[in-house]
Amino acid sequence: MKINGKPYRTIWPVGEAVEVIDQTKLPHAFATLRLETLEAAAHAIKAMIVRGAPLIGATAAYGLAIAMRKDASDEALDRAHDTLLETRPTAINLRWALTRMRERLRNQPRDQRAAIAWAEAAAICDEDVEVCRSIGEHGLKIFREAAAKKNGKLNVLTHCNAGWLACVDWGTALAPIYMAHDAGIDLHVWVDETRPRNQGASLTAYELGSHGVPHTIIADNAGGHYMQAGQVDLCIVGTDRVTANGDVANKIGTYLKALAAKDNNVPFYVALPSSTIDWTLNSGRDIPIEERSSDELLKMTGRLPNGGLATVEIAAPGSPGANPGFDVTPARLVTGFITERGTCAATNAGLLGLFPDSSGSPKADKDS
Amino acid sequence: MKINGKPYRTIWPVGEAVEVIDQTKLPHAFATLRLETLEAAAHAIKAMIVRGAPLIGATAAYGLAIAMRKDASDEALDRAHDTLLETRPTAINLRWALTRMRERLRNQPRDQRAAIAWAEAAAICDEDVEVCRSIGEHGLKIFREAAAKKNGKLNVLTHCNAGWLACVDWGTALAPIYMAHDAGIDLHVWVDETRPRNQGASLTAYELGSHGVPHTIIADNAGGHYMQAGQVDLCIVGTDRVTANGDVANKIGTYLKALAAKDNNVPFYVALPSSTIDWTLNSGRDIPIEERSSDELLKMTGRLPNGGLATVEIAAPGSPGANPGFDVTPARLVTGFITERGTCAATNAGLLGLFPDSSGSPKADKDS
Repeated sequence: MKINGKPYRTIWPVGEAVEVIDQTKLPHAFATLRLETLEAAAHAIKAMIVRGAPLIGATAAYGLAIAMRKDASDEALDRAHDTLLETRPTAINLRWALTRMRERLRNQPRDQRAAIAWAEAAAICDEDVEVCRSIGEHGLKIFREAAAKKNGKLNVLTHCNAGWLACVDWGTALAPIYMAHDAGIDLHVWVDETRPRNQGASLTAYELGSHGVPHTIIADNAGGHYMQAGQVDLCIVGTDRVTANGDVANKIGTYLKALAAKDNNVPFYVALPSSTIDWTLNSGRDIPIEERSSDELLKMTGRLPNGGLATVEIAAPGSPGANPGFDVTPARLVTGFITERGTCAATNAGLLGLFPDSSGSPKADKDS
Repeated sequence: MKINGKPYRTIWPVGEAVEVIDQTKLPHAFATLRLETLEAAAHAIKAMIVRGAPLIGATAAYGLAIAMRKDASDEALDRAHDTLLETRPTAINLRWALTRMRERLRNQPRDQRAAIAWAEAAAICDEDVEVCRSIGEHGLKIFREAAAKKNGKLNVLTHCNAGWLACVDWGTALAPIYMAHDAGIDLHVWVDETRPRNQGASLTAYELGSHGVPHTIIADNAGGHYMQAGQVDLCIVGTDRVTANGDVANKIGTYLKALAAKDNNVPFYVALPSSTIDWTLNSGRDIPIEERSSDELLKMTGRLPNGGLATVEIAAPGSPGANPGFDVTPARLVTGFITERGTCAATNAGLLGLFPDSSGSPKADKDS
């Protein structure tokens, strides 16, 4: 997508390194960062310089490829795999990408591993772009139907950022929004602020604003009210992990919006690449939920009137905070999944219908 | 309640004026403000220097009493009534207090009105303290039963601030928490941050911390996750208006927590003085919902490392925000009401059972 008229991906190779957009600086500044070592790639994921399940996977792939240039031994391969895998626990694309990279490299001659790894990481990125484009096209059909029924402005609510900044390009939940907007559908997006890291107000609003999509930032608390008032026609979110039964881990607070959508008969869609499906887990209850620093909740960074940035403490001094990063939305609250192969019910049968070839993969993944 | 060991109410007379705690300064600084005119009282309500349904009513009563010192004519009485009534639309205690004041003053000799008004405002404040104490005692029974069943730490979740800072003293939702804590019940409070004005992180955490009640600030997004995880034993909130059928207007986001409580079989209680019941409305759908400035959402004030305060812009530049202040929780999601006369079901019959004398009041209020 474009920033100030210049097309960008969120990650791209530059010589023997990769560059990424530093998402901790957005929306206050646009800056890129060069990752030249395994450690830098791992830090970028952990510190959320890059974030979003697909982009985490892509960055891990490049991180492993960078490691192979320095040492292409089996031990180094395992070490790079493990170092990257432990950066964040919830997004399954991380494990998916690392498993794919290791499977591709094992049994390859050491002197070719660096080149193979680099090409494989690039392939993961290119495929992600195509997958997201397909998600957008399948989602667009749903938007067209909803718009035809509405006969007026289509109001869409999204939580967190599942846009192109969360992927390599296009986005998952935002891909259909971009395509619907570009197709001339009259739409407006309610952007959940998405506390505590504000990825909605910071990233989704930034993305939509850059692309000219009408949108309004709201507190995470407000979505239920707008649904009660008939001002939300559909919800669409991304996900960090979908289990084989259709449960959905996503940014904390997604569950509350799904409950409100159900209570008000508002369709609630989850957009995902198949790399986000964890066939090894049969229930969302088994997904590890990342606990992050309470500083994300108790402090806030923003722009001062003089243009500089400042971080302020916002809560009562001395009061502790807790900060779970994700919650699990039960499959029963999800209207449907939008994937690169089309849409399906949020059930095991629905997923298997689209991905009959994938259900056997858990055994391979389980040991990784 | 005490601040730094000194007992305070939120509003108290000083000579011919009243003083209030400036709640826009909390939790960063404790400051009081003297209100000497009708306009100052109206501004204090509008700008949320004082907030919380009961305290809004008490401040309006004193504001009207101050106006009577200057001009005790019927016209001045009506003007003061109307000026104060239009400061905020959702909390019904405002109308209740102003109606009571006007009813008390009409047909009184003009030269006695100022004194009568002053005494009536003081009576409203004293009664509010007693009402909140009673709510606390009735709520305490529920807490005792829950604690007995739990056999371990009782985890309570609350949204926004319905503590003593929202009332004259004690609080509504927090009164039972203070009493339970003081009675030696092992409890811990999940404090919803309560975006966009952060009354949870700012005021409730400040109150609970000052009183030594164990608590943890969480993002508004997190409550559903903790309920799913079995880490919330009961929810308790205040309200700005309860309609005759038991629907509950309260701070935006309350509805989402009530949905999650229902979905996880967590009891959801609403604590209220009977002055918060609007007998004239038969459904929450008819409650006017205040739309506040988007600055409350898009900017944030906090403490700099050097101890000073700064206000920073936190969202994507140029993105608009919307900021509804309240939502309506349908009665079907409410486990019970806790009032000064005891607890009841969140139904018209439940309310009438406790307040059979009040149901006739709508006619009198309707014209006010």
